[in-house]
Amino acid sequence: MITMDIKFSDRTKLIKGSDVRNKLFDNPEIIKLAAGKPEESLFPVEELTLAVNEAMKYESSSALQYGSTEGFDSFREILASDRMKSVGVDAATNNITLTSGSQQAIDIAAKIFTNEGDTVICESPTYTGALGTFKPYNVNFVGVPMDDNGMIMKELEKALIDNANAKLIYTIPDFHNPTGRCMSDHRRKQLAELGAKYKVPIIEDNPYGELIYEGEKHPAVKSFDKDGWVVYLGTFSKILAPGFRLAWICASDEILNKFILAKQNSDLQTSTFSQRVVEAYMKKNDIDKHIDSMRVVYKGRRDAMLESIKKYFPKDVKHTVPYGGFFVWLELKENINTNELLLEAAKNAKVAFIPGSGFFPEEGYTNCIRLSYSHSEIDIIEEGIKRLGNLLHSYY
Amino acid sequence: MITMDIKFSDRTKLIKGSDVRNKLFDNPEIIKLAAGKPEESLFPVEELTLAVNEAMKYESSSALQYGSTEGFDSFREILASDRMKSVGVDAATNNITLTSGSQQAIDIAAKIFTNEGDTVICESPTYTGALGTFKPYNVNFVGVPMDDNGMIMKELEKALIDNANAKLIYTIPDFHNPTGRCMSDHRRKQLAELGAKYKVPIIEDNPYGELIYEGEKHPAVKSFDKDGWVVYLGTFSKILAPGFRLAWICASDEILNKFILAKQNSDLQTSTFSQRVVEAYMKKNDIDKHIDSMRVVYKGRRDAMLESIKKYFPKDVKHTVPYGGFFVWLELKENINTNELLLEAAKNAKVAFIPGSGFFPEEGYTNCIRLSYSHSEIDIIEEGIKRLGNLLHSYY
Repeated sequence: MITMDIKFSDRTKLIKGSDVRNKLFDNPEIIKLAAGKPEESLFPVEELTLAVNEAMKYESSSALQYGSTEGFDSFREILASDRMKSVGVDAATNNITLTSGSQQAIDIAAKIFTNEGDTVICESPTYTGALGTFKPYNVNFVGVPMDDNGMIMKELEKALIDNANAKLIYTIPDFHNPTGRCMSDHRRKQLAELGAKYKVPIIEDNPYGELIYEGEKHPAVKSFDKDGWVVYLGTFSKILAPGFRLAWICASDEILNKFILAKQNSDLQTSTFSQRVVEAYMKKNDIDKHIDSMRVVYKGRRDAMLESIKKYFPKDVKHTVPYGGFFVWLELKENINTNELLLEAAKNAKVAFIPGSGFFPEEGYTNCIRLSYSHSEIDIIEEGIKRLGNLLHSYY
Repeated sequence: MITMDIKFSDRTKLIKGSDVRNKLFDNPEIIKLAAGKPEESLFPVEELTLAVNEAMKYESSSALQYGSTEGFDSFREILASDRMKSVGVDAATNNITLTSGSQQAIDIAAKIFTNEGDTVICESPTYTGALGTFKPYNVNFVGVPMDDNGMIMKELEKALIDNANAKLIYTIPDFHNPTGRCMSDHRRKQLAELGAKYKVPIIEDNPYGELIYEGEKHPAVKSFDKDGWVVYLGTFSKILAPGFRLAWICASDEILNKFILAKQNSDLQTSTFSQRVVEAYMKKNDIDKHIDSMRVVYKGRRDAMLESIKKYFPKDVKHTVPYGGFFVWLELKENINTNELLLEAAKNAKVAFIPGSGFFPEEGYTNCIRLSYSHSEIDIIEEGIKRLGNLLHSYY
């Protein structure tokens, strides 16, 4: 039953597996500084168990039944008044719809905004999972270079001028995946203005913004959005738990309506069970306090990674210095192919990372690495960076 | 912020809301014999509460964390050995992948099997939600007529011969939505053979097969599948609770791999939380016993609807006699437009149904009605059918 004569669609050829989900990483001897997973010991299991029991006691009928595509109004109201307010956005309940993770929102954005051959503008590099989702829609990518303040706005405007068929700007302003960089407030305002000026919707994907380790949270790009060109993606995956697959979109009525209809076709609705559980959690707990306690842990891990890099890496290895999120980004000498390096690192040094090439909208950038410090304890991070440093020294 | 100059994709014009989700139905005075919702009082709340607590006690790390796109192996194993066996299919764990409801499986099937302009063959009428999902992929539909034994195989073969670009056969063999009809075992075997003969994959969507009120369960079309042309869709939505958004695909390795990759792009994975809860439920409870207890209730409601139809409807109204599932299908006089009739029924008779036109792959069938008996108690069903009968008498 192996080779049949099945004709798959043309777009199926464009569907690829994610580099982040590599079977190589299953070996328990390998230190994995790889996936952007939250730390399990930070899940508020006790509070969530109480919330689940509350939901099953008082809301079982609605939690177990079908619900509306947009989600429970009472839950959307919490997202509008609580979560959106915390990033400086003044939103109403009917500007919110739930999605099954932000990944689904990216898929729906591709569906409703792009035709074949259209252009999607994004940071270069960018979230590999977004590239994977966009590709089967047969779009072209134009990558905009970044510096330590995020996407460079002059370069973005150039891309908008040069690409009349640009239909979407996809950005991760906060502690960007994979680089850990954060967009300055000034550029956020400029970005919102450029979207409106060139009439290109902006997808602001913000899984990491709450996990800031120095200074104050940044206002969302959406907070500078006057005419509804910004679609904000929020999620509980990093601030609570990814297992619920609970995320949300905040957008103008016109855009939101299209999202809702497209989502109805994709999966009818997001789990009513997850919604009721997280709603009960939000009502009984101060999630901001919970996030504060996570920040302390992740900050410690970030510090450990940065200090270990200083201690163990060749001085010429360039790296970012994130002040939030999960990732450090490395740029190695141009002749080092990190896809090959990963095999060597896993086999000989027993340490794993994500090679950078999968994060680029363009071909040919093979000398970068994404490291994650979110899912390993400090001593493991130190040992992992030491192992990787030893390996790198053989190349420098 | 109402009219902006947003350019949506061409396919967005093909995305329509479902007739089943009509705001009209929100009026509590109206008796709704409409949506195919399971009865809330049949949800095993106590057992599920125990299962949730079990999952949170022993499996919270994995239940709340990211998981693989295909799902937990231990849960896939239960689906293969328990659920697939119960429909006569001999499946291995790696023939199973989870989906976020069967709706997602339909969307992914469209994605991986069809190009623009390809043909999808289905029953006429068929599940309106499948039509809605297929349409934005810009496919053509060819509807195959049915009789009381389901899709007519001679007509299907004719459609396969006439449409060389047919890429998919979508079918609901068991207590078909919207007609309630069930495909004979003989035809199931023929269907599997025709798919293989013409090399066209078959999507066998089976939400209702377990809810049979007379005789023995039918073997799945998939049980007659020798070469892997049948993709079986199973779900917990009707046999346990739709709120979990938990469904599965059973398919050959080659097809399943494409499904998994496409699903990764769509939403990364199905809720690990839902998976762990339902797995815990399945391990501690006999779901077949639970299904038996549901059958008794739904059978009583079906009987009430059929008896009330006999008592209150004009004799010339044609209707199906389902022996399982949730639906009765009515065919009225050709000059009655049931979209208009619904407005009159809701306003004057205070009873609601789903007009049939949305279930047809072709235009022009406006004289049919889908009634659902799943979500109303017996006296409500009797009163609803009486009200509708009175209204119908004014047309006959």
